[in-house]
Amino acid sequence: MSQRGRFITLEGGEGVGKSTNLALVADWLETRGIEVVRTREPGGTARTEAIRDLLLDPDVAEPLDDDAELLLVFAARAQHLASKIRPALARGAWVVCDRFTDATFAYQGGGRGIAASRISALEAFVQQGLQPDLTLLLDMPMQAAQRRLQGRLEHNGAQRDRFERERGEFFEAVRRAYLDRAASAPERIAVIDASADLATVQHRLLAHLETRVAAWR
Amino acid sequence: MSQRGRFITLEGGEGVGKSTNLALVADWLETRGIEVVRTREPGGTARTEAIRDLLLDPDVAEPLDDDAELLLVFAARAQHLASKIRPALARGAWVVCDRFTDATFAYQGGGRGIAASRISALEAFVQQGLQPDLTLLLDMPMQAAQRRLQGRLEHNGAQRDRFERERGEFFEAVRRAYLDRAASAPERIAVIDASADLATVQHRLLAHLETRVAAWR
Repeated sequence: MSQRGRFITLEGGEGVGKSTNLALVADWLETRGIEVVRTREPGGTARTEAIRDLLLDPDVAEPLDDDAELLLVFAARAQHLASKIRPALARGAWVVCDRFTDATFAYQGGGRGIAASRISALEAFVQQGLQPDLTLLLDMPMQAAQRRLQGRLEHNGAQRDRFERERGEFFEAVRRAYLDRAASAPERIAVIDASADLATVQHRLLAHLETRVAAWR
Repeated sequence: MSQRGRFITLEGGEGVGKSTNLALVADWLETRGIEVVRTREPGGTARTEAIRDLLLDPDVAEPLDDDAELLLVFAARAQHLASKIRPALARGAWVVCDRFTDATFAYQGGGRGIAASRISALEAFVQQGLQPDLTLLLDMPMQAAQRRLQGRLEHNGAQRDRFERERGEFFEAVRRAYLDRAASAPERIAVIDASADLATVQHRLLAHLETRVAAWR
């Protein structure tokens, strides 16, 4: 009987480099012979990517209600857990996920101002105790992250999604909520200074990962 | 300052004649000079109709998790309340809605087997005390309703949606949950025997409506 796999999440605001570093983490684990499932929230499956589209659609004719946004996030999470994350962990695979519930506390809590107690209630409802084993929070000053985001959008010729269109104070609140959350769960959440050059950030990230994985084995 | 409008819902399983009777109720109110907003759940706005599409999509490659279904229903409800129902009631319009939270207790509770306490928690979260002023529950034996549904689908050349594909025992459980709910809130929910011919059903429906509306004025 195989052991349950580990659940690792990457967190952080727009432009902090989550995608690049997620690939680094997943590759590092795979070179150690671990089966890795790479995924993201909201999304990760056909049905949840459709929910993601609803969440990111910047249609301004009908503003999305904050509670509706929160419930869509958790609907996608319930589906993602049932159809992808729990089955992977159960067969012993490790799951590396771009954003999870810490992002909900940061964006819908910090950003939108929804009370943390309301988010916790839905977290308990949907996750029934499941938490990431390790969360790598990529942190950097908002202005620098916004410059990186802008550079990427221009490079890709992409439009800003519904969240990317928010103002600076929204992203400041998101960052603050992330750091508060890390302070309240230091044994799970490692804060990585992501403002340095990529090689330095990756060195810091792998140092955290290696220490943690060694302790698990 | 105008008085808050009234909130009337029509409930019942597939094939009981909700659409026809919703039009009857709305027309009857309008002839009395009342501004009526006709709507439905899940749906009623651009964003919520998109959520409805996700709920009804019979894609079997990725089964929809029961909790995800429940959360999508309440996400659509939060949006519907915020962008359509509450504004209408606030300006004094009456809202006549095809299905609301009683349907969630019937379909996701009775049909899917989700505990009523979990549904109540989300109801409180989203509605914050708002309840319909009157609910007209159209009730008839499941077999007869299924024959009507089949006739309608053949007439329209339509495919069955994700709910319409359920088996007979699902619809029996839905009906039972609806009747239990009516028994627990007899002052709000009027059960209309919908197995008779249309004229008789409409006569019964309008008798209930007239009595109730007279008591409100």
